[in-house]
Amino acid sequence: MNKQIILKKRPIGFPETDTWELQQNKIPEITEGEFLIQNEYISLDPAMRGWINDAKSYIPPVKLGDIMRAGTIGKVIKSKNTSFEVGDIVTGMNGVQQFIITNGKGQFKIQDIGLALPKYLSVLGMPGMTAYFGLLNIGQPKEGETVLVSGAAGAVGSLVGQIAKIKGCKAVGIAGGKEKCDYLIDELGFDQAIDYKADNIWNALKEKCPNGIDVYFDNVGGPILDAALGRINMKARIIICGAISQYNNSEGFYGPKYYINLLVKRARMEGFVVFDYQDKYMEGSRQMAQWMAQGKVKSKEFVVEGIENFYSAFGRLFSGKKKGKLVLKV
Amino acid sequence: MNKQIILKKRPIGFPETDTWELQQNKIPEITEGEFLIQNEYISLDPAMRGWINDAKSYIPPVKLGDIMRAGTIGKVIKSKNTSFEVGDIVTGMNGVQQFIITNGKGQFKIQDIGLALPKYLSVLGMPGMTAYFGLLNIGQPKEGETVLVSGAAGAVGSLVGQIAKIKGCKAVGIAGGKEKCDYLIDELGFDQAIDYKADNIWNALKEKCPNGIDVYFDNVGGPILDAALGRINMKARIIICGAISQYNNSEGFYGPKYYINLLVKRARMEGFVVFDYQDKYMEGSRQMAQWMAQGKVKSKEFVVEGIENFYSAFGRLFSGKKKGKLVLKV
Repeated sequence: MNKQIILKKRPIGFPETDTWELQQNKIPEITEGEFLIQNEYISLDPAMRGWINDAKSYIPPVKLGDIMRAGTIGKVIKSKNTSFEVGDIVTGMNGVQQFIITNGKGQFKIQDIGLALPKYLSVLGMPGMTAYFGLLNIGQPKEGETVLVSGAAGAVGSLVGQIAKIKGCKAVGIAGGKEKCDYLIDELGFDQAIDYKADNIWNALKEKCPNGIDVYFDNVGGPILDAALGRINMKARIIICGAISQYNNSEGFYGPKYYINLLVKRARMEGFVVFDYQDKYMEGSRQMAQWMAQGKVKSKEFVVEGIENFYSAFGRLFSGKKKGKLVLKV
Repeated sequence: MNKQIILKKRPIGFPETDTWELQQNKIPEITEGEFLIQNEYISLDPAMRGWINDAKSYIPPVKLGDIMRAGTIGKVIKSKNTSFEVGDIVTGMNGVQQFIITNGKGQFKIQDIGLALPKYLSVLGMPGMTAYFGLLNIGQPKEGETVLVSGAAGAVGSLVGQIAKIKGCKAVGIAGGKEKCDYLIDELGFDQAIDYKADNIWNALKEKCPNGIDVYFDNVGGPILDAALGRINMKARIIICGAISQYNNSEGFYGPKYYINLLVKRARMEGFVVFDYQDKYMEGSRQMAQWMAQGKVKSKEFVVEGIENFYSAFGRLFSGKKKGKLVLKV
């Protein structure tokens, strides 16, 4: 039997418990060219909230009745496909379920470099590629510049700050709570951390970014985006990667009043979706793996066990009750 | 005697009558290296509203007690400067006053190509350069794309649409009232016009931009910016040139909720200040003059007479009671 999380209802605001349903379905036999993957870890990402809205976006919404979309990593346990053998470790967008049968389309074989599997969903997966290509391609940080990132203790944000440091920038992170702020500085090597729950963000930015902000990597939107816009430098680059503070806002998104600073500072605000860089993932993950091996990039994975706990685990994406990359152990 | 408009008070919201004061001051004698210009036309531009706020911006605010900043064109009537002779036509940021004494810094001699003087403050002046460099350098329109512009019957907007047509784009203008919309289509050759006062902007954009928006040149901000963001195409470019609907908003600027579409569409929103292109004005004005001579670019100047009428003329920038470029005849 295959335990699967099915989308049952489109939420308004924060998803309620009846948004998804756990189903058990029989696993069919594989046919010629197919193989069966047993998922071991499922990636939980803030973007998933957007995927269940019935709205045109950068990918089609998950349909009602379909298995909830998610990135996964797992092992091939049966195969009638010559390119994938039993025992191969495979990653793909295989959904919140225990097993999947596939013909190999959209599946990537993982070269075992001795890392724990969750790392492949974290530094070497979507969050890693998001941080790498978003910061470097859109943000184009230059040595000596100040790079600010929100959601800094999260999967993407924690990597953005570390890559900024590697590139010779000053890295300033915004996170919620003292523990996360200490983590940024003590463990990840950020130069400064701002606790948005305790500090006035405007004052804190003035104090922690005395030379202004050259690159702002925005994962949160809302008033924090406004405050960052209020302190940008000439020709600043703002990367719009997400808006986690707004995804469950049933009143619609908060609009940044200080967008007009783009004019004053001749600055640029640009949206970014990691999927556009798929053909460069190899380059990105090689570089990230190298930096990890050199000790220049660290990551934490926050593991929740049991596909039955999908709903409560998903809630941690928004409650702030986790550090680093959230994964579900199947 | 020199009639001068002096900034007396910083306004909150729309400037009241006591914001400026008309003064008459004696004109001093010119000394060696100086010359005296008699201003003939004074440029009135929406940006002037921003210049009287006590806030850091792309240029320092006009100081209380100072002559109101403005672009001008006039004639040299006395000279002890070897580079500027009596009779020369000179343009510069010479302020709202009848006369100015200068050593030539920031003054540009106009080559008489047989145009009425207000054209040098319009197509060949700041609005022309704003449209030219803003659209071409930031917007980078490609043949066949849809270019949307707000404030389309204004000095800048009317030129943006015409340059878009020259570049093989579909030009859609947003303006207030049927008369202005007819003007855009019948006289300036826009493909479509939207009357934001009569039409629902969301519906109108759907109808008039059926293929979406590739470039949006924003002069107005507010809910029109939001609606435009709601209809952008992949990799769209939004040029933030101004926000005339918001300059007198004492509650602070309206923040565009649909900025998140920048992410969905991997689009870019970038601020623009024409002064950055000063060293290319020659190139820009040559091209604009050529297009005018070829009949490809037309412009209207709306002339108000008398420096005494500065205040009421200034109000027309925001009331919509004018078409094309507003100038004050001294």
